[in-house]
Amino acid sequence: MRVLIKNGLVVNADGKRQQDLLIEDGLIKHLADVIEAEPDCEIIDAEGCYVMPGGVDVHTHFNIDVGLARSCDDFFTGTRAAACGGTTTIVDHMGFGPPGCHLRHQFDVYRGYAAYKAVIDYSFHGVIQHVNHSVLDEIPMMVEAGISSFKLYLTYQYKLSDDDVLQVMQHLHRAGALTTVHPENDAAIARRRTEFINAGKIAPRYHALSRPLECEAEAIARMINLAQLAGNAPLYIVHLSNGLGLDYLRLARARRQPVWVETCPQYLLLDDRCYERDDALNYLLSPPLRGASHNDALWCGIHDGSIDTVATDHCTFSSAQRQQISGGNFSQCPNGLPGVENRMLLLFSHGVMTRRISPERFVALTSASPAKLFGLWPQKGLLASGSDGDVVIIDPRRTTTIRHELLHDNADYSPYEGFICQGAIRQTLSRGRVIFDNGIFTGAAGQGRFLRRNPFSADRLPVGGPEL
Amino acid sequence: MRVLIKNGLVVNADGKRQQDLLIEDGLIKHLADVIEAEPDCEIIDAEGCYVMPGGVDVHTHFNIDVGLARSCDDFFTGTRAAACGGTTTIVDHMGFGPPGCHLRHQFDVYRGYAAYKAVIDYSFHGVIQHVNHSVLDEIPMMVEAGISSFKLYLTYQYKLSDDDVLQVMQHLHRAGALTTVHPENDAAIARRRTEFINAGKIAPRYHALSRPLECEAEAIARMINLAQLAGNAPLYIVHLSNGLGLDYLRLARARRQPVWVETCPQYLLLDDRCYERDDALNYLLSPPLRGASHNDALWCGIHDGSIDTVATDHCTFSSAQRQQISGGNFSQCPNGLPGVENRMLLLFSHGVMTRRISPERFVALTSASPAKLFGLWPQKGLLASGSDGDVVIIDPRRTTTIRHELLHDNADYSPYEGFICQGAIRQTLSRGRVIFDNGIFTGAAGQGRFLRRNPFSADRLPVGGPEL
Amino acid sequence: MRVLIKNGLVVNADGKRQQDLLIEDGLIKHLADVIEAEPDCEIIDAEGCYVMPGGVDVHTHFNIDVGLARSCDDFFTGTRAAACGGTTTIVDHMGFGPPGCHLRHQFDVYRGYAAYKAVIDYSFHGVIQHVNHSVLDEIPMMVEAGISSFKLYLTYQYKLSDDDVLQVMQHLHRAGALTTVHPENDAAIARRRTEFINAGKIAPRYHALSRPLECEAEAIARMINLAQLAGNAPLYIVHLSNGLGLDYLRLARARRQPVWVETCPQYLLLDDRCYERDDALNYLLSPPLRGASHNDALWCGIHDGSIDTVATDHCTFSSAQRQQISGGNFSQCPNGLPGVENRMLLLFSHGVMTRRISPERFVALTSASPAKLFGLWPQKGLLASGSDGDVVIIDPRRTTTIRHELLHDNADYSPYEGFICQGAIRQTLSRGRVIFDNGIFTGAAGQGRFLRRNPFSADRLPVGGPEL
Amino acid sequence: MRVLIKNGLVVNADGKRQQDLLIEDGLIKHLADVIEAEPDCEIIDAEGCYVMPGGVDVHTHFNIDVGLARSCDDFFTGTRAAACGGTTTIVDHMGFGPPGCHLRHQFDVYRGYAAYKAVIDYSFHGVIQHVNHSVLDEIPMMVEAGISSFKLYLTYQYKLSDDDVLQVMQHLHRAGALTTVHPENDAAIARRRTEFINAGKIAPRYHALSRPLECEAEAIARMINLAQLAGNAPLYIVHLSNGLGLDYLRLARARRQPVWVETCPQYLLLDDRCYERDDALNYLLSPPLRGASHNDALWCGIHDGSIDTVATDHCTFSSAQRQQISGGNFSQCPNGLPGVENRMLLLFSHGVMTRRISPERFVALTSASPAKLFGLWPQKGLLASGSDGDVVIIDPRRTTTIRHELLHDNADYSPYEGFICQGAIRQTLSRGRVIFDNGIFTGAAGQGRFLRRNPFSADRLPVGGPEL
Repeated sequence: MRVLIKNGLVVNADGKRQQDLLIEDGLIKHLADVIEAEPDCEIIDAEGCYVMPGGVDVHTHFNIDVGLARSCDDFFTGTRAAACGGTTTIVDHMGFGPPGCHLRHQFDVYRGYAAYKAVIDYSFHGVIQHVNHSVLDEIPMMVEAGISSFKLYLTYQYKLSDDDVLQVMQHLHRAGALTTVHPENDAAIARRRTEFINAGKIAPRYHALSRPLECEAEAIARMINLAQLAGNAPLYIVHLSNGLGLDYLRLARARRQPVWVETCPQYLLLDDRCYERDDALNYLLSPPLRGASHNDALWCGIHDGSIDTVATDHCTFSSAQRQQISGGNFSQCPNGLPGVENRMLLLFSHGVMTRRISPERFVALTSASPAKLFGLWPQKGLLASGSDGDVVIIDPRRTTTIRHELLHDNADYSPYEGFICQGAIRQTLSRGRVIFDNGIFTGAAGQGRFLRRNPFSADRLPVGGPEL
Repeated sequence: MRVLIKNGLVVNADGKRQQDLLIEDGLIKHLADVIEAEPDCEIIDAEGCYVMPGGVDVHTHFNIDVGLARSCDDFFTGTRAAACGGTTTIVDHMGFGPPGCHLRHQFDVYRGYAAYKAVIDYSFHGVIQHVNHSVLDEIPMMVEAGISSFKLYLTYQYKLSDDDVLQVMQHLHRAGALTTVHPENDAAIARRRTEFINAGKIAPRYHALSRPLECEAEAIARMINLAQLAGNAPLYIVHLSNGLGLDYLRLARARRQPVWVETCPQYLLLDDRCYERDDALNYLLSPPLRGASHNDALWCGIHDGSIDTVATDHCTFSSAQRQQISGGNFSQCPNGLPGVENRMLLLFSHGVMTRRISPERFVALTSASPAKLFGLWPQKGLLASGSDGDVVIIDPRRTTTIRHELLHDNADYSPYEGFICQGAIRQTLSRGRVIFDNGIFTGAAGQGRFLRRNPFSADRLPVGGPEL
Repeated sequence: MRVLIKNGLVVNADGKRQQDLLIEDGLIKHLADVIEAEPDCEIIDAEGCYVMPGGVDVHTHFNIDVGLARSCDDFFTGTRAAACGGTTTIVDHMGFGPPGCHLRHQFDVYRGYAAYKAVIDYSFHGVIQHVNHSVLDEIPMMVEAGISSFKLYLTYQYKLSDDDVLQVMQHLHRAGALTTVHPENDAAIARRRTEFINAGKIAPRYHALSRPLECEAEAIARMINLAQLAGNAPLYIVHLSNGLGLDYLRLARARRQPVWVETCPQYLLLDDRCYERDDALNYLLSPPLRGASHNDALWCGIHDGSIDTVATDHCTFSSAQRQQISGGNFSQCPNGLPGVENRMLLLFSHGVMTRRISPERFVALTSASPAKLFGLWPQKGLLASGSDGDVVIIDPRRTTTIRHELLHDNADYSPYEGFICQGAIRQTLSRGRVIFDNGIFTGAAGQGRFLRRNPFSADRLPVGGPEL
Repeated sequence: MRVLIKNGLVVNADGKRQQDLLIEDGLIKHLADVIEAEPDCEIIDAEGCYVMPGGVDVHTHFNIDVGLARSCDDFFTGTRAAACGGTTTIVDHMGFGPPGCHLRHQFDVYRGYAAYKAVIDYSFHGVIQHVNHSVLDEIPMMVEAGISSFKLYLTYQYKLSDDDVLQVMQHLHRAGALTTVHPENDAAIARRRTEFINAGKIAPRYHALSRPLECEAEAIARMINLAQLAGNAPLYIVHLSNGLGLDYLRLARARRQPVWVETCPQYLLLDDRCYERDDALNYLLSPPLRGASHNDALWCGIHDGSIDTVATDHCTFSSAQRQQISGGNFSQCPNGLPGVENRMLLLFSHGVMTRRISPERFVALTSASPAKLFGLWPQKGLLASGSDGDVVIIDPRRTTTIRHELLHDNADYSPYEGFICQGAIRQTLSRGRVIFDNGIFTGAAGQGRFLRRNPFSADRLPVGGPEL
């Protein structure tokens, strides 16, 4: 099986060039200024288009049970949507298991969730639900099994204490795993939340008011310092939503501390006016949307290199579910936004087409840097001989209006409804197979493979200082 | 003549409050929670609206002859447009006079231009065309006559050398005048411009490419240091267009140097993609529009207090003029954008309504701070007893689409055509007289008075550090 | 009783001038370029000297029982040393009382400690040992009684949780009290400390290694954010020892948050090489001494206005006590350094005489700003009519070598032994009485009065941005 | 000829290790944990010592005629002093030649100066005295001949205009040469200087007052932007003396601009109080010494990685010369300080021994980074097989008091007289030959070779962001 992509502008994180690209047996065979087609070769004419590594979305929550509800995208609908949005790899979070459960338990559960369902290649982040000897001892085996990153929560039911964090980060660091963290100060949220609930202030806007940006910024500064105290352990901050947190991260990077940060399209493009809308429930997520100035600040971080990756935190609860479960009470509403299908095009349109970022930096943000951070590079995130034939072809001349009815997830709304994007996803290829073609999903459940990820290595990553 | 504005939210730079406001004989008589109407009193019901000080636009060029052409707004059409956009005071720049001419000469010329024409109150900035004893000697008399600010150019025909700048700033400082500056490095521009012209690269996009942001940033850093060397002379940077210049200004403010900075709506809302449009000629101005990341950076400065004022640099050359004079050659096209009518609403919509800034900070940026910097406060820029009855009433519930055909200047296009603004200018009052009422200009030529401005004083201004 | 100080350079935080100064009945009567002496008037000729407000040292621990030992300076020896070093006011910390004790309990204890002993005027900071309704209810009464600042600890036995901090800061803010905090992350210290002890690493150097700067920086960032979350409560960080914490504070100030910071001479002038000395035990304090680069960073903060006050954290345990109690084991050694007598001259010599800071800024750092922050201004920290006659006269022409044998505290060593200072404390006056005169203590126990301090007010303080 | 250095701690910029090091025929043959001595091998026992690459001082002015006088160190006394201070390579500046002279002319002159005289290896920086086609055309040939860096002056007789700078930087960049610059604003200096002279203010202190730090900072910002405008040409700022300039450089580095900066021991360790001394004339240099706060700021830059190299700007005019030529008039006194012999030990003592910097960073600052920047690496600045056998052995246990009478230059004073340094230079080896041994110069004139330097390459250099 051979596919030849001709006449496109091939873009990697470190350069771009008008080239043809040949995929054979799922792997990129070679790139050259001109490659002649051979008889048995499927040809895709990418004239006028960008040919880029398929997206790597390292923050999704498919099939997750958050207590109040189970998210309504599973590994089929979720990865189908990803594929249709130009993403060819996801790293999902193993959700919380039964109290006290082994890391291995959730790994088994999640492999079961994904098998026969995933359309694209996938892996999982471990989640540290509690810290004890049993968990600490399991870590090296998990890394060996390809799970080289673990998420900590500082809020919610399974929040970790400072002492837990120090302990587990040391173990993760030693075992070759990257620590990722959901940073929000639990005590401050709990106090405000209780005050609001007691005062009957349960409208969606109080969700945001119960988690001000200082909750997040505090936890970011705390984690930066705990990581340093845990032996300069590498750290990855997820879903950054505000500019103060970014300033703390800039200070850490200026000190050359190995810390990286992800933001999501919702924090770049939506703001807290959403909580005044009639459908405000649809915008509840944590951390919440902030004021528009934080969009500006995050865009500055995207531009100047302070932000390393863009992921989605895709976690779908339908509008119907939200309303039914919560009855409009923010404290009873499951949190999360869909978006796995929109990430690539939103950033392309608002980043590349506005010239805020170069196409190369787009690749870094959406595939190359996430792949490097999470042990998937150069298999993923790179268009070069030997890499997987995961490709997205984007046509910058077309315009796309986001409409939920055209999306491929299992939600019943899109937070980006009506957004007009400059550009269109034309084709997505997963290991050489066209899985999305001009609006049509052409993949199949079960085609995706589990990715045994490499241990964390900072070798190819910027250690301190922005990389533009 | 009495006007009572009832039920509005009265906003000043230092606070807001639901209040009624009574104007008598052109001056604000008093404000109170409730003022009862008396028989002879015109009543304006501002329920649901913001009642704010009329805008003070300290950067306009009416009637200016730039060599290639004369701008096509005079003091009637220009101030009419201002009035219809909620601006009740302008400070225009005396253009260049004959080589070697006295400051007084241009002052006479400009008083002549404005008399019988201006709809709203006005003053002028002096322009330092050359530096010699005669000019230096004239400065105190000009300040005495109410001209307490002077503009220097570092590029164009009448650019000043470093030595000129040092000399004139010392004199201006001593005389109680504020130095304002158009900062662009002339040598770098000249070199690039010549290269492009010699290479036949005369399309509009080369205008921007001939004046990269470093030209502006260099000149800003230079002026900051020369101001310090001239005895810590106060300095006002006009039309900031880029984030690097802003960083230099932040450093100066952190050192508590008395330096302030203005930006304009075009640098917040338009970007260099305009130079790829068919009507690119319509967007030629200096400094040119930058990449969208600079919009982001400037919005951050608006939010965090690093930027002090928003003015327009209104300087109209019609689309027809531009095309005819230049034949499409950027180097032959007069520079400048119209916009005096759009400033207030654009900043209200994209600043206040997005919650990037508070209504109070909107007032600071659009009227209070410019009035303080240019010797007009508390007569202008303040709603308080004794201040002029200059008021703008903005309805946040309405939506306004900018269409050139609805504007009141003398241009034949608007750079903001099609922009949808949340909010609408409902009424503008100049010294108690309604001069704009729900879409209708109700003022008259000659109603505006020359404002003899006070000498510069830093007393009420932030000296270093942001003021939020 | 009248004292006339003639021919000196009178320095306040906002200016300096060659003036004479007359004190009558303990209060400053007036200042003038020349004041003629009257018959009954004691005359001090301050020709060639600086005449400054007596020092206000807001961080001392006299007579404190830290569990391992009681500090060996009481309110007599401690304030005598202060007086001999040019300090005329101290604000001491009420130490920890019995578990669960009332705020009032410690207040009574400390008034007892100070009465009949103190040589100079004094007040106390409350200490929040635990948070419950009883304590929260007592706060307003304490503020009413003149105790308008309270200290929180984030480490040691009585560390507070985030929730405690939020709760108590809200109450303190409402009651008009300033929150001060000892910021160190307890969990990180506990973990390291245990590791070292278990490994038999008990030499003094392990004290510093068990409390790395990130412990302090983390806690500073945490407190900044919790203060904001507690309703923008005012916050005062004590004994800053490192540059990263200072960077966090700069970010907060740039956002105009009401937060201030103190450092101490030991963090400006000593560094962690002390822990390699034979007498390393004498240098154990918390936070510990850092690397010399942090001296540099803190001096930059002193210079640029980011640091607000210099206090001492004077807490004396003699060399003999330290050795005897600890047997050389860092974990058994009481913490703290003497220094109340050296603060003024060390900062004068290394700050003013090196021209790092102006004499005015010296006054701000050592008396005016602490007095403003802690409700003592303009009674203290100011040389103006009506203020207390608290004066220090410093001769910049003389040189002083610090020798413990010449000091007036109850320690048996000085951490600054052998330091050569440019300048000498010539006289100290407390309410018009000369209490130190050219090397001789001339005061008496019991002359000092308890100062009922005013509630906290930010009116005269810089809110955000440096004040130079 | 073989030399075996045993038992030392071998330090390179990227690591350190207890190793033996064998030099054969002037080149490093190999390093190993233990190398057994062979019969014919000279053995140096470096037990307890640091074994580091010999210093590379890229800023000296030997034999230079500055108009007022000729500097009194020639290539023999100058390099002898360097050798005795642990420096084994210098890059001297070709001084100004006759007006209009060719680059080649000065190259010939300087090769003549150095031949038969230099004790250690040497090269030269070209100096751009004027810009015209002839000079621009010569540049590639000079680079070919091994002169891959050129100095521009923005002040003094041969100052270049902005246009000159743009032009010559483009040519230098294309030719593979690094631009270095003496940044001071000429107009501001000229104006102040004239004012002082006219007012009879000719004492040495007026030298410093005529060149405030803003003169330097302005020129730094200007050069940063002109370098960017000249096609992102690489730039090297010499002799940074102040913190504001450093802040501008930090901004440039955060933008990843290829700009590097040098400071000198005098700016780290001396301050403007020297201008109040009786021998103030001995401290005249440009830029002048600044306030002590700038020492602090520069040390912060040394620590955090913002400063790349430490050189000396060694330019000796004897105390006698200074006095005789100037008669005490600052404007008639030749500028410059000796110091080539003190650089290594001063930075070792105040940097490494205070723990402000690691030994590795010391090597980066004093040899590895200068060698990389100026085309000498890995021949110089590295202890590795194949590199030149240029070594300095420093004993950290000894103490050295700087006394002019012990130095080896041709000055009659040392600006560091009486400085006590922790550490001592024990031996210096140049290509395997011991040229300094425990206080005794053992080298000979003419042993040094001209170094044909490689073209500039940024490959191994930090591009933006500090390197720690």
